[in-house]
Amino acid sequence: MRYMLLTVAAASLAVPVLAQDAAPPPSPGEIAAAAKPDEWVAIDAADLLVMDLAPDGAGKARRVVIQLMPPPFSQGWIGNIRKLAAAHWWDGTSVNRVQDNYVAQWGDATEKKPLPEGLAVVPESEYVSHFQTFVSGNEADPKAYYRYPFVEMISAELPIAKDGKGKRQDGYGYQTGFSKGWPVVGELSARATGKYQPALWPVHCYGAVGVGRNMSPDTGSGAELYAVIGHAPRHLDRNIALVGRVISGIEHLSSLPRGTEALGFYAEEKERVPIVSIRIASELPAAEQPKFEYLSTESDSFARYADARANRRDPFFIAPAGGADICNIPVPVRAVAAK
Amino acid sequence: MRYMLLTVAAASLAVPVLAQDAAPPPSPGEIAAAAKPDEWVAIDAADLLVMDLAPDGAGKARRVVIQLMPPPFSQGWIGNIRKLAAAHWWDGTSVNRVQDNYVAQWGDATEKKPLPEGLAVVPESEYVSHFQTFVSGNEADPKAYYRYPFVEMISAELPIAKDGKGKRQDGYGYQTGFSKGWPVVGELSARATGKYQPALWPVHCYGAVGVGRNMSPDTGSGAELYAVIGHAPRHLDRNIALVGRVISGIEHLSSLPRGTEALGFYAEEKERVPIVSIRIASELPAAEQPKFEYLSTESDSFARYADARANRRDPFFIAPAGGADICNIPVPVRAVAAK
Repeated sequence: MRYMLLTVAAASLAVPVLAQDAAPPPSPGEIAAAAKPDEWVAIDAADLLVMDLAPDGAGKARRVVIQLMPPPFSQGWIGNIRKLAAAHWWDGTSVNRVQDNYVAQWGDATEKKPLPEGLAVVPESEYVSHFQTFVSGNEADPKAYYRYPFVEMISAELPIAKDGKGKRQDGYGYQTGFSKGWPVVGELSARATGKYQPALWPVHCYGAVGVGRNMSPDTGSGAELYAVIGHAPRHLDRNIALVGRVISGIEHLSSLPRGTEALGFYAEEKERVPIVSIRIASELPAAEQPKFEYLSTESDSFARYADARANRRDPFFIAPAGGADICNIPVPVRAVAAK
Repeated sequence: MRYMLLTVAAASLAVPVLAQDAAPPPSPGEIAAAAKPDEWVAIDAADLLVMDLAPDGAGKARRVVIQLMPPPFSQGWIGNIRKLAAAHWWDGTSVNRVQDNYVAQWGDATEKKPLPEGLAVVPESEYVSHFQTFVSGNEADPKAYYRYPFVEMISAELPIAKDGKGKRQDGYGYQTGFSKGWPVVGELSARATGKYQPALWPVHCYGAVGVGRNMSPDTGSGAELYAVIGHAPRHLDRNIALVGRVISGIEHLSSLPRGTEALGFYAEEKERVPIVSIRIASELPAAEQPKFEYLSTESDSFARYADARANRRDPFFIAPAGGADICNIPVPVRAVAAK
């Protein structure tokens, strides 16, 4: 009974060699693995945050790599994070909170370490990206939404359940899709003007990295960060700034002992996991910079991958779900060997 | 920045003492904590599976408590599990697989330990519970669905996004709700007869426990079990038997080191976590039986709790989500002190 799922075990099947009617339908992982080289997008070293935790009890290195979000999302906080990393501010801080099925959180446990000068104070309005203009002059046409240049929502093509109007596709009542490699959620909101003003925001999926804050209107500086290590806490969307996602090493956070204080904070200082350093990858020597690429969410292979996530036809499955929530379609990311 | 969420920290606020217009709206946790004693339902010791893992590296006990599912779901496999526990079959087996954002799985790593005699072979048709009859004679009336006596779907009252027909409420295109303390999903499926035959099935939420299997038509005996430790893998619904959920001690599974082999299996025998014993709680001495109760999903407090999960109005939140997926409304379960 080793094969509860076959995605990995079956990845080496030589599908093209078999007669077409004998080849089993590919799994999502196989579809991604078979994507053309030009469907993968290299992630710039300037957009990678590299966190090295102290080695584990067996002396094994623990590196967590976070991809920062592209514009138009959360750039104020991300600018602060770049400054904090450049100042080596996190070196010597720690992971202080691990709450089961929720988040792992890190930063300065003393809350007294002075922050670098020049950090921005970012308003809550930045939790959401509002479109300023339409490409189409017809604001009543929902399809105009998809034509806005900086994002292409492909939810219309995704097999996520839709109502008759193509709206309210998930349990949260919003349209979901992918843009430039990221899961996003959006809505057409009627403003006081009576005109539609579409809005988009990033999603608290597994591995998402956000900015801890105190009570509103504080939105946090970016010095206190958390990563989601459980079922997507979508109630945090639009309530906390998301700045990126863990693309490698999430297990070094998700497998940490859970804290026993309220909210999963560690009770004792010795339980905290020391952070050796956090750097933007481009600050590392070239030979030490980790390299990753993601499967373009605008590619044909991604469309087939997403369809297969929603309709598993590979041999293990007998009843395809017929849909998927946005966080159950993780964007494929892979490490690239240094040249 | 300690208070990323205030659910726990604010739980002791003496709300009734404050003037009504000054009291902040309660959090979901506060609503559950304030439920009346008769809204909580005691879980029978005969429905609790108690798994004791070997102590951790610091010598600390690790107990995982699983609640088995009530009829009409998965009773064939659950009968097998009762026999396996009564035979003390799992004693000396181990946790063999931990895959990040997916499952922890346990059983006999050698796959050679003889099973007790008399285990049932359960067919795939048991993944789903089909209603046999209608209370209402009007099969075309979807509301008849809710009148079937063994389950009361309360999704109609839940703030989960609905289309105009009250269907397709989640990303998977199904109606979701709660029955007797459990999250369930259902659909009205048109059969070859042209008549509607409603079906219900349990959901792979965080903590759900299921039966490992090989390729179809094998459905597994129940000797190999797994618990969900990541984002709800809803594509497994109707493809694997679910038999229960972890109600205490999930952190002893979710914080284990991830296996480095395919599917998260441990590479070496020494990495496996020994299982000291698995017992039905009623087999334990009375004084040692753990006692738990869940908040009745048919209670007024649960309805308010679910609404608050979907629309966070407690002070930390500025933008209530307006909905929630079924797995983001975990049914409150609490330990009860022995009398």
